[in-house]
Amino acid sequence: MSSPPDLAVDADRLWHRLMRLGGIGATSGGGVDRQALTDGEHEAWRLLLDWSAAIGLEPATDPAANLFLSLPGHRRDLPPLLIGSHLDSQPTGGRFDGAFGVMAALEAVTALADAGIVPARDITVVAWMNEEGSRFAPGMMGSEAFAGVRPIEAVRAVRDDAGLLAGTEIDRIHEAFPGLPRRGLGFPVAAYLEPHIEQDDVLEKTARTIGIVTGIQGKKTFEVEIAGEKGHAGTLAMAGRRDAVAAFARIASALHDAIGTRDDDIKFTIGRVEVSPNAPSVVPGRVVFRIDLRHPDNAVLDGCGRRIAEICAAMAAPCTVRVAELVSAPSNAFDAGLQDRIEDAAMRRGHAAMRMISFAGHDARHLASVCPAAMIFIPCRGGVSHDESEWAEPTHVAAGAQVLLDVVVGLVAQAGMSEAKALR
Amino acid sequence: MSSPPDLAVDADRLWHRLMRLGGIGATSGGGVDRQALTDGEHEAWRLLLDWSAAIGLEPATDPAANLFLSLPGHRRDLPPLLIGSHLDSQPTGGRFDGAFGVMAALEAVTALADAGIVPARDITVVAWMNEEGSRFAPGMMGSEAFAGVRPIEAVRAVRDDAGLLAGTEIDRIHEAFPGLPRRGLGFPVAAYLEPHIEQDDVLEKTARTIGIVTGIQGKKTFEVEIAGEKGHAGTLAMAGRRDAVAAFARIASALHDAIGTRDDDIKFTIGRVEVSPNAPSVVPGRVVFRIDLRHPDNAVLDGCGRRIAEICAAMAAPCTVRVAELVSAPSNAFDAGLQDRIEDAAMRRGHAAMRMISFAGHDARHLASVCPAAMIFIPCRGGVSHDESEWAEPTHVAAGAQVLLDVVVGLVAQAGMSEAKALR
Repeated sequence: MSSPPDLAVDADRLWHRLMRLGGIGATSGGGVDRQALTDGEHEAWRLLLDWSAAIGLEPATDPAANLFLSLPGHRRDLPPLLIGSHLDSQPTGGRFDGAFGVMAALEAVTALADAGIVPARDITVVAWMNEEGSRFAPGMMGSEAFAGVRPIEAVRAVRDDAGLLAGTEIDRIHEAFPGLPRRGLGFPVAAYLEPHIEQDDVLEKTARTIGIVTGIQGKKTFEVEIAGEKGHAGTLAMAGRRDAVAAFARIASALHDAIGTRDDDIKFTIGRVEVSPNAPSVVPGRVVFRIDLRHPDNAVLDGCGRRIAEICAAMAAPCTVRVAELVSAPSNAFDAGLQDRIEDAAMRRGHAAMRMISFAGHDARHLASVCPAAMIFIPCRGGVSHDESEWAEPTHVAAGAQVLLDVVVGLVAQAGMSEAKALR
Repeated sequence: MSSPPDLAVDADRLWHRLMRLGGIGATSGGGVDRQALTDGEHEAWRLLLDWSAAIGLEPATDPAANLFLSLPGHRRDLPPLLIGSHLDSQPTGGRFDGAFGVMAALEAVTALADAGIVPARDITVVAWMNEEGSRFAPGMMGSEAFAGVRPIEAVRAVRDDAGLLAGTEIDRIHEAFPGLPRRGLGFPVAAYLEPHIEQDDVLEKTARTIGIVTGIQGKKTFEVEIAGEKGHAGTLAMAGRRDAVAAFARIASALHDAIGTRDDDIKFTIGRVEVSPNAPSVVPGRVVFRIDLRHPDNAVLDGCGRRIAEICAAMAAPCTVRVAELVSAPSNAFDAGLQDRIEDAAMRRGHAAMRMISFAGHDARHLASVCPAAMIFIPCRGGVSHDESEWAEPTHVAAGAQVLLDVVVGLVAQAGMSEAKALR
């Protein structure tokens, strides 16, 4: 086996491009509002297509509006190695969540291309559609459709707050790039690697640069609808009311007490609440809210899910309640071989690294069901993300991209030697 | 003293006009969405101006975009008798709240005009701007500005959800009616009479047709802002959170328990709740909500207001809270002489009547501070209002307008005899 070449990322180029990308959808507070399939994401695609055209990458999209940029290998029949993350952000998001992973992947293939290396299999940068789920809920639509977890028809049928269908917006981005070749959903993949900011402060607190992600904690999301009855706030006697906000307050309070304090690993969030008609002098007739529940232990997750339904049912009267489970993603474990390669690369570059679970969900969760997958975390300041103040140090950004590049180079070298055993 | 003429309202014309008006802003559910200063209200003005031009009424507006339609008297120097209500509705409102009062007033002056009666003083139909407060909060802007309760500058500075200023929208409706003469705010008024649906079921349950309103229960409105800190729903440990929705649930639950159950006369409503950023996977950083508090006893109202501030302050941690009192309107008593005239008119027409407090606020509250004022209630089905299913029987609509006409005719006859003592 020939020793892999020693390639280096261009830290300045990477940082410059990341900041340039962060200018698309930039908010006055220093963050980014570049939600899925908006004009901002169109602009981000345009920028990436320009950069990738300059180094000869082959672009493509698929029915879920995932974006692929391939460094062509000399064996086009082999499944590609996929590397990347997502370009969409929360409405008050930052410049690194998702964007870092895509730009680190682009930097890795740029280094390979600059060195004139032609791998056996394609190395394909990917930007998954709608990871965040803030515009079209729930998120990870692109990777779920790709992995066959969610039918593309179900993805297309989701509406945003303005009533626009995801399907219409998928068609719109495709029409905006008429020359872009189409691939089918869920083509075979050799392996998937996703660099990402940690979105927690464990790496920062323990002064580590690289997190080797062992898996992702389980997650369930619920939509709860409380139905009461509207009425005049000045005339309707309290005894005769079926006030949906009053029921929401009771239920949400009880859920926070019962579920939110269960143990140190639980994460319980009511992040979205819609009141109807939401007028100051009208007894509210309807509340729809979302619950985001996470835990590394699937048994605990399932138990808490059942308890949520029980509490809602027990406390809704005199209103009625409907609880729908929108997402149930059990915790998963990433590929052990890829984890070892990430650790090895970090060690050889002198970066302090640690194995850790991901508390946030990522597209890699769904890729893990169709190919060997792994994630590389870098620290973010104060563990803050989904916020305009989200920040990652340039040295950490470069370190994460370098580890990705080293792992890719290692896989390419191995694949060159023995195609049959490559990557598995 | 000459006996007043016996005039009759045209019940069919009145009902037809009321239904015609209800077609402006009509919703698919059979109700009306005709919020203040919208295109719908422009259209309603146009319709009223057409009807009033046909009988020679003199139209005018004022800096608060109140609409006046005067049947001219022969003594233009005397303060007019004002009769009417409002044209704006809740977003999911009905065809009677406000509209009935304006159309009953138009019917009364139409009957006078048709009979060729020229009163001493002007009889002026009024439609007050933004009684409901659903688009620009809080409501009763027009009557408050007219009565000097709220400066016109404060009214103009209020924004709707789309960020539009009430001032801009006042200018827009004035520009849409360029030929409309302007009057100053708060000109002298001899007396004010407002017919309205009851918005409760006391008349219906006791089989009465006319309510003689003795006064309006006191009302306070508060805006409460809970400030926490945004974060990632999957990573931020529960112990480190400052979750604004969790704080809202605790506070709202405690307020409903402590204030909402105080006695049978209290009305406590949290009708409007705004969560930021309101994304399913973001720990919410901010909640702003409105409290609508009403009670006939001003001492109880003040005490509950203080208790609300205490509970919010005590239960907000680890978030912070700010409580602002937006409206403080004590309960008031309507003019005794006008109440007697309404009772007398109802009796002579054979309508079962009763004296009653109004639980809902009305523009008459503010007029009562500048002139003798009173209200005439008619039943509405099931006591339901602020809802698309709001309904009043045609016979009750006609009865309310007839009692108004009779009281107006009585005042006109008296005023004709002795101008100095007229209306006082």
